[in-house]
Amino acid sequence: MSKSRLETFSDGVFAIAITLLVLTISSPVDYGRLGHQLAHRWPSLAAYIVSFAIIGIMWLNHHTVFNHLEVVDRPFIFFNLFLLMTITFLPYPTGVLGEALAKSQGTTTAAAFYGVTMILNAFAWAALWLWASRGRRLLRPSFPESERVMATVLFVAGAAVYTLAFGFAFLDAYVFLGIQGGLALYYAFDPISRRVARSAPGAVGREGSVESRLPDPPGPRE
Amino acid sequence: MSKSRLETFSDGVFAIAITLLVLTISSPVDYGRLGHQLAHRWPSLAAYIVSFAIIGIMWLNHHTVFNHLEVVDRPFIFFNLFLLMTITFLPYPTGVLGEALAKSQGTTTAAAFYGVTMILNAFAWAALWLWASRGRRLLRPSFPESERVMATVLFVAGAAVYTLAFGFAFLDAYVFLGIQGGLALYYAFDPISRRVARSAPGAVGREGSVESRLPDPPGPRE
Amino acid sequence: MSKSRLETFSDGVFAIAITLLVLTISSPVDYGRLGHQLAHRWPSLAAYIVSFAIIGIMWLNHHTVFNHLEVVDRPFIFFNLFLLMTITFLPYPTGVLGEALAKSQGTTTAAAFYGVTMILNAFAWAALWLWASRGRRLLRPSFPESERVMATVLFVAGAAVYTLAFGFAFLDAYVFLGIQGGLALYYAFDPISRRVARSAPGAVGREGSVESRLPDPPGPRE
Amino acid sequence: MSKSRLETFSDGVFAIAITLLVLTISSPVDYGRLGHQLAHRWPSLAAYIVSFAIIGIMWLNHHTVFNHLEVVDRPFIFFNLFLLMTITFLPYPTGVLGEALAKSQGTTTAAAFYGVTMILNAFAWAALWLWASRGRRLLRPSFPESERVMATVLFVAGAAVYTLAFGFAFLDAYVFLGIQGGLALYYAFDPISRRVARSAPGAVGREGSVESRLPDPPGPRE
Repeated sequence: MSKSRLETFSDGVFAIAITLLVLTISSPVDYGRLGHQLAHRWPSLAAYIVSFAIIGIMWLNHHTVFNHLEVVDRPFIFFNLFLLMTITFLPYPTGVLGEALAKSQGTTTAAAFYGVTMILNAFAWAALWLWASRGRRLLRPSFPESERVMATVLFVAGAAVYTLAFGFAFLDAYVFLGIQGGLALYYAFDPISRRVARSAPGAVGREGSVESRLPDPPGPRE
Repeated sequence: MSKSRLETFSDGVFAIAITLLVLTISSPVDYGRLGHQLAHRWPSLAAYIVSFAIIGIMWLNHHTVFNHLEVVDRPFIFFNLFLLMTITFLPYPTGVLGEALAKSQGTTTAAAFYGVTMILNAFAWAALWLWASRGRRLLRPSFPESERVMATVLFVAGAAVYTLAFGFAFLDAYVFLGIQGGLALYYAFDPISRRVARSAPGAVGREGSVESRLPDPPGPRE
Repeated sequence: MSKSRLETFSDGVFAIAITLLVLTISSPVDYGRLGHQLAHRWPSLAAYIVSFAIIGIMWLNHHTVFNHLEVVDRPFIFFNLFLLMTITFLPYPTGVLGEALAKSQGTTTAAAFYGVTMILNAFAWAALWLWASRGRRLLRPSFPESERVMATVLFVAGAAVYTLAFGFAFLDAYVFLGIQGGLALYYAFDPISRRVARSAPGAVGREGSVESRLPDPPGPRE
Repeated sequence: MSKSRLETFSDGVFAIAITLLVLTISSPVDYGRLGHQLAHRWPSLAAYIVSFAIIGIMWLNHHTVFNHLEVVDRPFIFFNLFLLMTITFLPYPTGVLGEALAKSQGTTTAAAFYGVTMILNAFAWAALWLWASRGRRLLRPSFPESERVMATVLFVAGAAVYTLAFGFAFLDAYVFLGIQGGLALYYAFDPISRRVARSAPGAVGREGSVESRLPDPPGPRE
């Protein structure tokens, strides 16, 4: 199993999970009061947006991690499968949370259920990273040792943070959902990713893709 | 994140969203009157076809835009994720509009809901383009300045046009659906894309693909 | 749009449509009589298998056609989108036909509905081929002229055959389903494909893939 | 059809099937008793996890098999389609088994139904391998003859083992589900795969991917 194939498979799973999310919003029943029924579903839409952001940003960070790897081994593939399982499962608690909020029933349970999924996800990320980075097992030689230590701290802290966030499920489900969205945004701008981002544009330009090796469209036109 | 990887992920999302659309057509209930039940669902089929055309043509134009980019950066990736969200969400208003039309209930609300999704989509396109093209941030050096200006006008105009089209939701939902289909067709033949199309065949022929580098099948046979 | 990108997108749509088919089999309701309920659904399973074979074999023949193309142009892309629409739509009539047969209600209507979808599909194939091959518009120079003529005859005949097969919907829905399965099998072994298949193994061996360029696993072990 | 294209299509189907599995867990109905309703669904979750593991590990072993092939031919493609059909179908018996266990109704039938699907899958694997390996039809010259014999024994034994496992459906559905999970784990560590795994890291390192040819991120930072 080459690294690129594992990445392609993972990308596929991310893409499918993020697209399936739309099925978590329940269809209206009474079209005579459609406006009311759609408005009533706004928590499902909110949960949809939060989960979309979570999966989208995790997809991005998944690449960041993979960019630092030299090779993958079989245990890593299984850690990755476990991570993917927590992501493909996310549509279910997303649907439950949206529906519970819309019904104003079982909101604590629904938020806690969503929270547990995210804790498992955070632990899956930490496990994936620890396996890859312990003793620099799978890392590229050029990946700086100082970054390795910091990334390890951040991934372990992530698992702790998601465990703490779980507590808000028992306070208020809307606050909980907001915190989940906020955490996703934090990871959109986390230190490791930002550094990679800074170096990415140039790197991409040099590397290019099949498309970017297309001859440029002919010069200025009328 | 290389440009080609972002494109592949986006392609996957387009492909899944376009295929999931079929789930928006509700199953018949009374098979004793199946012919009537299927005929009754023709607005769902019409909405399906319009949304299929919208997603298919957007997929095509997504490539056109990407062909003009030299690199991608992190904000662009997030604009692209937002654009993808409006597309993965489309099956939901498609199902609602088709069902409302079939029931002749809540058609104005359903059309307005569909229209809002398309407005967000048009703004996502404009934002994506503005980010990529302002100061030629991500554009290829060879992309003509005159085209950049015209494309900017067209993308901003697109956002305005979709906002205007929204008004037809309050006139008649069928007319509204027809206009959405018409706008998709317009974008199938918009100036930028057409120019690219004119230069594409030759370009593709020169570039080729893995498949096209396969040895040609042996000559004429019996 | 390069040919390889169009192929990748099409492959994705084929893969998703073929996998979504499983959702067309309705879930059991009464688990106290599960054996009976599952047995009662055998026509849904039969329709599932026929549609799976149809999509799988069309995916295969789609590549055969693409292998003969030198380039793709924009109209071809739209013909291809239309073809994909008939394929992504197939799960719907598949579910309806399976359910109608299981209920023994509306079977003629359901079969006719499935038949119309397949007629549209056959016309989409013929249109795709005619656009690509008229005046050898998109064909490779090495594609033999005699094959071009024969392929054109076969694609046009296919449209006629599916139109004829439609008639069996009014005779018996089971016979109709069997004929659809039989036609799929015919296309699994059609002359054009078989010729390509004969030349394929060697061609693949010479071309290889990223994976096949992996160093061979080290020699014999204990 | 090149080997790499067949692999990509298969990967897509694996990725979609593994992601669709989440739709097999039925949504809660009574949100007033959400905690109870979710807890009640734990067998659906267990079935989900087992099927996820099965598909994930089969995806992995699918690559192992493909790595040993020099070329693919048309019959192989059809054997592969049959294998994929058993995998895309798996979500259905998974949903049925989870629901039956949750309801404590029809568990024997549901387990037997799941078992039959897995038997067909095991036979599909054996058929795929026998076609590829008989007379070394599609194998790489470097694939050791001793391994070929052992792999043949293992694939045929697999078909026998899954047939035996089927018997446990009639003993206890939970035990049956556990055995299915255990068999998946066994295949995660089966002799052929393990050998490949041992040689994989180095091989991947030498081959690399587009991403891994990206220039390394610049050296240590503050």
